[in-house]
Amino acid sequence: MSMNTFGRVFRFTTWGESHGPALGAVVDGCPPLLELNEAAIQPFLDARRPGTSRFTTQRQEPDQVKILSGVFEGKTTGTPISLMIENTDQRSKDYGEIAKAYRPGHADYAYDAKYGIRDYRGGGRSSARETAARVAAGAIARLVIPEVTITAYVSEIGGDAIDRDNLDYTFIDQNPFFCPDRLAAERWERLVDEARKNGSSLGAVVECVASGVPAGWGAPIYAKLDADLAAAMMGINATKAVEIGDGFAAARLTGEQNADEMRPGEPGPEGRGAPEFLANHAGGIVGGISTGQPVVCRVAFKPTSSILTPRKSINSDGEAVDVRTKGRHDPCVGIRGAPVVEAMMALVLADHKLLHRAQCG
Amino acid sequence: MSMNTFGRVFRFTTWGESHGPALGAVVDGCPPLLELNEAAIQPFLDARRPGTSRFTTQRQEPDQVKILSGVFEGKTTGTPISLMIENTDQRSKDYGEIAKAYRPGHADYAYDAKYGIRDYRGGGRSSARETAARVAAGAIARLVIPEVTITAYVSEIGGDAIDRDNLDYTFIDQNPFFCPDRLAAERWERLVDEARKNGSSLGAVVECVASGVPAGWGAPIYAKLDADLAAAMMGINATKAVEIGDGFAAARLTGEQNADEMRPGEPGPEGRGAPEFLANHAGGIVGGISTGQPVVCRVAFKPTSSILTPRKSINSDGEAVDVRTKGRHDPCVGIRGAPVVEAMMALVLADHKLLHRAQCG
Amino acid sequence: MSMNTFGRVFRFTTWGESHGPALGAVVDGCPPLLELNEAAIQPFLDARRPGTSRFTTQRQEPDQVKILSGVFEGKTTGTPISLMIENTDQRSKDYGEIAKAYRPGHADYAYDAKYGIRDYRGGGRSSARETAARVAAGAIARLVIPEVTITAYVSEIGGDAIDRDNLDYTFIDQNPFFCPDRLAAERWERLVDEARKNGSSLGAVVECVASGVPAGWGAPIYAKLDADLAAAMMGINATKAVEIGDGFAAARLTGEQNADEMRPGEPGPEGRGAPEFLANHAGGIVGGISTGQPVVCRVAFKPTSSILTPRKSINSDGEAVDVRTKGRHDPCVGIRGAPVVEAMMALVLADHKLLHRAQCG
Amino acid sequence: MSMNTFGRVFRFTTWGESHGPALGAVVDGCPPLLELNEAAIQPFLDARRPGTSRFTTQRQEPDQVKILSGVFEGKTTGTPISLMIENTDQRSKDYGEIAKAYRPGHADYAYDAKYGIRDYRGGGRSSARETAARVAAGAIARLVIPEVTITAYVSEIGGDAIDRDNLDYTFIDQNPFFCPDRLAAERWERLVDEARKNGSSLGAVVECVASGVPAGWGAPIYAKLDADLAAAMMGINATKAVEIGDGFAAARLTGEQNADEMRPGEPGPEGRGAPEFLANHAGGIVGGISTGQPVVCRVAFKPTSSILTPRKSINSDGEAVDVRTKGRHDPCVGIRGAPVVEAMMALVLADHKLLHRAQCG
Repeated sequence: MSMNTFGRVFRFTTWGESHGPALGAVVDGCPPLLELNEAAIQPFLDARRPGTSRFTTQRQEPDQVKILSGVFEGKTTGTPISLMIENTDQRSKDYGEIAKAYRPGHADYAYDAKYGIRDYRGGGRSSARETAARVAAGAIARLVIPEVTITAYVSEIGGDAIDRDNLDYTFIDQNPFFCPDRLAAERWERLVDEARKNGSSLGAVVECVASGVPAGWGAPIYAKLDADLAAAMMGINATKAVEIGDGFAAARLTGEQNADEMRPGEPGPEGRGAPEFLANHAGGIVGGISTGQPVVCRVAFKPTSSILTPRKSINSDGEAVDVRTKGRHDPCVGIRGAPVVEAMMALVLADHKLLHRAQCG
Repeated sequence: MSMNTFGRVFRFTTWGESHGPALGAVVDGCPPLLELNEAAIQPFLDARRPGTSRFTTQRQEPDQVKILSGVFEGKTTGTPISLMIENTDQRSKDYGEIAKAYRPGHADYAYDAKYGIRDYRGGGRSSARETAARVAAGAIARLVIPEVTITAYVSEIGGDAIDRDNLDYTFIDQNPFFCPDRLAAERWERLVDEARKNGSSLGAVVECVASGVPAGWGAPIYAKLDADLAAAMMGINATKAVEIGDGFAAARLTGEQNADEMRPGEPGPEGRGAPEFLANHAGGIVGGISTGQPVVCRVAFKPTSSILTPRKSINSDGEAVDVRTKGRHDPCVGIRGAPVVEAMMALVLADHKLLHRAQCG
Repeated sequence: MSMNTFGRVFRFTTWGESHGPALGAVVDGCPPLLELNEAAIQPFLDARRPGTSRFTTQRQEPDQVKILSGVFEGKTTGTPISLMIENTDQRSKDYGEIAKAYRPGHADYAYDAKYGIRDYRGGGRSSARETAARVAAGAIARLVIPEVTITAYVSEIGGDAIDRDNLDYTFIDQNPFFCPDRLAAERWERLVDEARKNGSSLGAVVECVASGVPAGWGAPIYAKLDADLAAAMMGINATKAVEIGDGFAAARLTGEQNADEMRPGEPGPEGRGAPEFLANHAGGIVGGISTGQPVVCRVAFKPTSSILTPRKSINSDGEAVDVRTKGRHDPCVGIRGAPVVEAMMALVLADHKLLHRAQCG
Repeated sequence: MSMNTFGRVFRFTTWGESHGPALGAVVDGCPPLLELNEAAIQPFLDARRPGTSRFTTQRQEPDQVKILSGVFEGKTTGTPISLMIENTDQRSKDYGEIAKAYRPGHADYAYDAKYGIRDYRGGGRSSARETAARVAAGAIARLVIPEVTITAYVSEIGGDAIDRDNLDYTFIDQNPFFCPDRLAAERWERLVDEARKNGSSLGAVVECVASGVPAGWGAPIYAKLDADLAAAMMGINATKAVEIGDGFAAARLTGEQNADEMRPGEPGPEGRGAPEFLANHAGGIVGGISTGQPVVCRVAFKPTSSILTPRKSINSDGEAVDVRTKGRHDPCVGIRGAPVVEAMMALVLADHKLLHRAQCG
């Protein structure tokens, strides 16, 4: 893995800045003969797209993807697939004020300290717009793992969590929060509205479940499935934590409670079946390898750093300034994190499916 | 990164099974002319070594490291450094019973599902003994980053957390729990003893702070410092969660609360100084790049899966069995996780120091 | 290195097919603050561009490069640089006949055997058009190594070699063959014309000299400078051999003849100077590391496989056919290989400069 | 690929110096369930072993390999296989004189220029002893590709080539030169004896043929099979050139001559057969992908740099000295290159078999 490339066998490289002409991804190692066209990618971009409700940034980006290579007569050819999304609604002048000031909580100061230069318009490379490229790449990854179903949803906003007894997957696409709990979605509407009006912002937790992953994907020791998922998720903008299965809660269980007991499963057509697990504290992964249970992870997003409320900071001349971030921002960046978490899950799983096939046939 | 290799420029590869003749690491990319001998590595291995108190496994392993290459006349030469630790206290016969039975919570079933074969003796490659090789490699990584001080400690066992008002770093090495809180250590003594006597086990949380990391290490987008730390920590045996800075708590803050405000710092000898941060919710990393603040992470360890209390499972013939893991095991594997977390922090930081130097000079 | 990515620290990924909408490269790991715009890249593309004389393919491609990311206010930012070149003169209908037939010497059969699908238009991904992306990336690599001067020239066409006594570097850009020998260029004019008229094609040898490379670049054992150069050159379309320094001729020397003797060099400003070498059989590299002498390599290009003379082959139905490749082709593809060899030399050297800096400071 | 690691999916990392306690390799990504023990590796090491005739160095090394991990009950487990070979016949005092002097043609000066330190004993890491680790790893690679037969032989020593009409593969193992031509072997005996007595040395060419490679291995653009072979071979000590198929001779053919014509092959059990090629100028690789024909490469070895005849040089103080290399050396290091070339061929092919399986199933 190099700096802007992710994956081992199924790999993708992303490029582009928030206010440059375009952004994109190059997907390498994709198996040949998969049916692919722009229409297979667009719905996933649409789910992540800004400006679709008052709970996300009002930047209007169609996020229309173009496939520039790697597909012939509607099928992947095994050569690199270049994806491009043009930026259309940049308002760089919004950013004049922060050309020199470092926004607290943002990557401004760190980029300057590292590179001695930064494209300050809309956060440049550190903008969450980069995740559009991942979502496009993730749509291709899904084609590689048709046996897997991936569902991500927001399970908590501003400390207000869903009630797991109300879990309704069909509701996720019917509300602007990717929320699987009708009552929570109602509460969040008020919560996020209030934050937006106050010039504040909120954090969120996104949960992701991948079912259909067979036992045996993942590779010890430094290519563990959970380690790769952790890197994938912690690399998404604004994330600060990753859990697999019970996560921190597992640290509070006893060994008896935490052990996922097994019983012989239903025999399949070719004889003995997979084991039936009596619990899934492990989140579908032990020893870095999938067990056949659903792979479960949870990702914490900090509140959007771009807020209207002024904060103390410094500028690139080292002077004290107060920063108030105008521009158009998500009051809760974690909401649009759900499609990105799904994409990263797909990208990690597709890579590990191929890696497993490489070594074990 | 391949499967048993970690890192980008400063890289290490580990090998070895719990009950094989030896285990080891090959460290590649180490700068030349660093002073290195076995004595510089051994103290870190001793800290992780089993059998030093009744709160860890009673397996007696001296974990004596040998340097087989890459050092000449007491200095690193820039060529690969091969480290070997011989296993001396294997009792493979303890494992006869589990040759066929899958221990719940263990990697047994997953390894068999993946490879169709597994070295069941002591967990084979999935044993936490592998972490000795990381600790040895980590000792070399520390030599690459003399400007950095790394401290890891156990902050919670079985749900019982330290009181941050009692934090005393000097106490960490004076108790068998790597605990920085004298009162918590007393409580844990009883807690762990009880778990051990009951044939049960406990989880733990390890916290790690690296101070002295300059601003600018880390590299967007897929080599973010926090993403690499997440992979590093989630790849340690028995870990289920990783937080950077406030982690999940950040998802419950507002944007104003979470923003780490800045003020001009004290001017240094060469003029303007680094900013003074008024908080460190970010844990020293924004946009994947270090800010100059302490890098903070937190790692959750599940309770040891090897317990004496019988659990329902199946064997490799698909039959229902009850499994009771004899052998010698840590009642709380997270305790010895502290030196491993420190090692992984050092390995990630050393790698990123060199990677930053490569790109930015 | 993944499949369509080259390099370790300074890396680039290319994408695109001969007759797709565009092709491009993503350059990752480039140091920040280098002055870069399209005009710095275009001259190198112009040198490689087809259709500039009757000795190259008549396909008219402006090969206009666009920078889509990684540059801000005229300077590199350290983030990935996306380069795109649109295809404008595809005549895909020329290729109808070979949609099913496998051209001997071409990658047609091999691609079909591997992927079960191929974009047959103009050779698809196996077309030498891909090298435009490398040349663009190479132009950026040159900015990373301003201390190095790279010159490639054609030293032999169809078995007719230059006379080294006539070597005139200033002539290289003044003839359509990148030939440094005025007399040879005259002979080649007749030679290549004749081949073209006969519907035949010719092979060539390209030689490349990089001067100014300091001692110490390259890294044993599997990142040797010469090994990376060999991979770089052998990966160019139509190449079949690579020599470093004396190459095969070295195998015919005695140890005394081959040893490049040394004498103390002129003292430099900071005291002792670099050694003065009395010969350069090694081509500037020993043990995989540069010595400070000019780095010299030689690359053999086979004759263009696309010829008008009919050849026996089979088609994708396994039937015997005779293939005659129409379309527009270089009568000697090695000629335009010279700028590509230069680019690959620059890319390898830039990567190794950064890699050396990473490890050795 | 990092510095001391080679390969993409089937990877190996080597370590060790000529006069250190041991050297070794860690093989990662090996498929599970292959039968493996030391006896499967030893014959290949014996073929490369020094001291077996008067035509190689008189250093006596049993080169006994030990497997330290990755094998359980006689079968590979899919986890890293650690191989170790202890050094037993170091005579480091032989090297006292060259502790400071740089041997012309050797890596001494380059290592010092790079690292500022070098283990001068026997060439340290730059010694050809490192190739023993590759040969051991190569023996495991062969198990991954049972369908392939690899044969390497010396085709030329000191400019005296074999007569291809005399090719007799069965003779290769019956003479100390890995020579397939009985008459050439007789001539070489005198040639090498003479060089040895004169304190001189000779170069050689090694040719390698791999038959049974199916069509479809190799992966454009930067993981081409021939590019990987070029890197693999150019990274062997003392090599200066690599040819695939006709190599430089292809640059002297016309397009008609060079095109490997095809005819429909014999139908196989499942219908249509592979094509029958009427020639193999390409050496079994086009577009970086195997065609099903034998893979052919040729590697040039320079004469051993360690010679008794004094040569002009400098020492690490920058003073002029004359260097005469005592110690025990191969009069023609290319001879023992044959088993190393075979090993590298196996390692590249095994890696590409798995990589192909990853992407194309």
